[in-house]
Amino acid sequence: MSVDRREFLVAGAGLLAAPALAEAGSGAQAQRQPARQPPLRRIATEEAWTIPEHLDALAPLSQGTWRNLDVEVINPAGSRATEPLYANLLDTQRRLAEMDRLGIDMQVLSLTSPGVQLFRADRAVALAALANDRLAEVVGSAPTRFAGLASFAPQDPARASREMERAVERLGLSGFIVNSHTDNEYLDEQKYWPILEAAEALDRPIYIHPRCPSDGMAAPFRGNRLQSAIWGFAIETGTHAMRLITSGVFDRFPKLRIVLGHMGENIPFYLWRSDHWFERRRDVYRSSLKPSEVFRRNFMITTSGVEHEPALRYAIEVLGADRVMWAIDYPYEAMSPATTFLNDARIEDADRAAIFHRNAERIFHLPT
Amino acid sequence: MSVDRREFLVAGAGLLAAPALAEAGSGAQAQRQPARQPPLRRIATEEAWTIPEHLDALAPLSQGTWRNLDVEVINPAGSRATEPLYANLLDTQRRLAEMDRLGIDMQVLSLTSPGVQLFRADRAVALAALANDRLAEVVGSAPTRFAGLASFAPQDPARASREMERAVERLGLSGFIVNSHTDNEYLDEQKYWPILEAAEALDRPIYIHPRCPSDGMAAPFRGNRLQSAIWGFAIETGTHAMRLITSGVFDRFPKLRIVLGHMGENIPFYLWRSDHWFERRRDVYRSSLKPSEVFRRNFMITTSGVEHEPALRYAIEVLGADRVMWAIDYPYEAMSPATTFLNDARIEDADRAAIFHRNAERIFHLPT
Repeated sequence: MSVDRREFLVAGAGLLAAPALAEAGSGAQAQRQPARQPPLRRIATEEAWTIPEHLDALAPLSQGTWRNLDVEVINPAGSRATEPLYANLLDTQRRLAEMDRLGIDMQVLSLTSPGVQLFRADRAVALAALANDRLAEVVGSAPTRFAGLASFAPQDPARASREMERAVERLGLSGFIVNSHTDNEYLDEQKYWPILEAAEALDRPIYIHPRCPSDGMAAPFRGNRLQSAIWGFAIETGTHAMRLITSGVFDRFPKLRIVLGHMGENIPFYLWRSDHWFERRRDVYRSSLKPSEVFRRNFMITTSGVEHEPALRYAIEVLGADRVMWAIDYPYEAMSPATTFLNDARIEDADRAAIFHRNAERIFHLPT
Repeated sequence: MSVDRREFLVAGAGLLAAPALAEAGSGAQAQRQPARQPPLRRIATEEAWTIPEHLDALAPLSQGTWRNLDVEVINPAGSRATEPLYANLLDTQRRLAEMDRLGIDMQVLSLTSPGVQLFRADRAVALAALANDRLAEVVGSAPTRFAGLASFAPQDPARASREMERAVERLGLSGFIVNSHTDNEYLDEQKYWPILEAAEALDRPIYIHPRCPSDGMAAPFRGNRLQSAIWGFAIETGTHAMRLITSGVFDRFPKLRIVLGHMGENIPFYLWRSDHWFERRRDVYRSSLKPSEVFRRNFMITTSGVEHEPALRYAIEVLGADRVMWAIDYPYEAMSPATTFLNDARIEDADRAAIFHRNAERIFHLPT
């Protein structure tokens, strides 16, 4: 079994595992705090994790001729024993040691992309439940260090909503994760409303994590390696969010909260223009609120994978610091630079505290 | 013949013509200048224009069952006599009067989207040549007030490159415009390299103007009115640009210049993350330069349709003011607010001058 080290099993397509691990030596800087500040709690909110059964279920999907961009980036030869990425996804002790080294208080864990969304409904439902049980065990083993976002199977919205309820009320998980489209469909479609309804009723957010562009959007990304983090993830996920925003689901579920990673999947930078054209064509959109009104009321963004101070400052200026949460995207991104980035960003200390921990505590109902 | 006033003929899909015209009364503010400044030259760089033959050629395309997002937004009943939008596209005297009122010195005109790209090659080639001849007449009639970007037919790259040469060397036009994809193909494909080669050799930029997402990317945009300025234009055009950026064409044509409107079609906000993943997978991309290196060397952006000061300041910070040009996107956007926006933006006066006119003079070789 040959292992292509340039690939990895799941949707962070195109990662060299090595750089994500090359963190040694920068811990001192990452832990530096301005003297005037009290120690700052750090809660990272988009942190990938998985279980062996998930990896074992995904790998065979790539053996066929299924032309789907996510399937194409699954590494069919992936070996849990030899790939550092897999160890980083599976091994919570290793994760905790690195968190300790960098002063990261908590990670909010979630099943790595594409989660259970490539499977038929029955398989997906069972795998989500298993992953949620295991995630609850991880959280239970270190409740001050880990929280968890529950998986669910959008393939079966009724069972998804029941699993969401179980995950919060019985397992004590803190929210939900979904990897953008499911079978090329998006959550604005009415068949998925039970999922949105459950999230709102449970007062827990849905993190819409990227996956590669859906089949109906895939063509321009094929063959040029643009389907993943370099561009396609944001196209897929931002388009999903824009469908939700304009569809009116936030009129029906006004307290529903959605989280977007990667500094908002480009939507914050385009929000003025989206508003402008929305207002000129209010007759064709079902939402009563313009995009920026929905975005500032119902969305949170995270900094995952974007260590770019101008983008952070733009997001704070346009959305407000209470709309932004810190995230690493470990192990697809390394912990150290993501921590250093927010430690050192030239922003107000109150904003830094909001982004490092206060917003996450509020949104995910975490113990403070 | 009933006219659906909620539609308009070409790619600015979904525009109520009326708001674009509702400019009266704000001229005084638009013309205000801080006392310390000399009069500022204002050159708008993405200004739509057309000829009757173009409108007449487009309208019948919508009579069939062609499921293409651009075709779907053509107004089959559009009447040049009754639609204000058409008058604004066709009537240069009306345009000049409004320019005078607002202190706009020059508009760089270009054939309105989707240009000639919906036609078979022979028709497209002929229509581009006709439009270029007429555009040269408009420029010749008022050479201090108008410049022009030439159309060409990517459907026939060899003839396109000859028309590009004719447009610059014989007609005196100042650059080129293309409306993103052509028959669902993008300019990074080798068959289109004669077009890139011609633009570089002539030292004139290609403005990549939006059109709706290509057929292979259309599905998530269908039925929800996201295909045009509210979101889809940026997805289509930004993806086109990212294909060019990563494909290595700028190694082959290092002096080629591309212009993107709408504050850069989201690329500036995503540039850090694109760089980051490009560097981790240099082995799979043909470009020797990372995205930000290409973008800052080979691209210009314009402010068309984005009157949002935080986005402007972000663009200046990340790209430099010498990479940003002013544009209105008339008549899809009104002249007055676009002028007021840059008149009043809280930026350095030197940057304002660069964006209002100096960059355009340099890039398009305009008389100063």
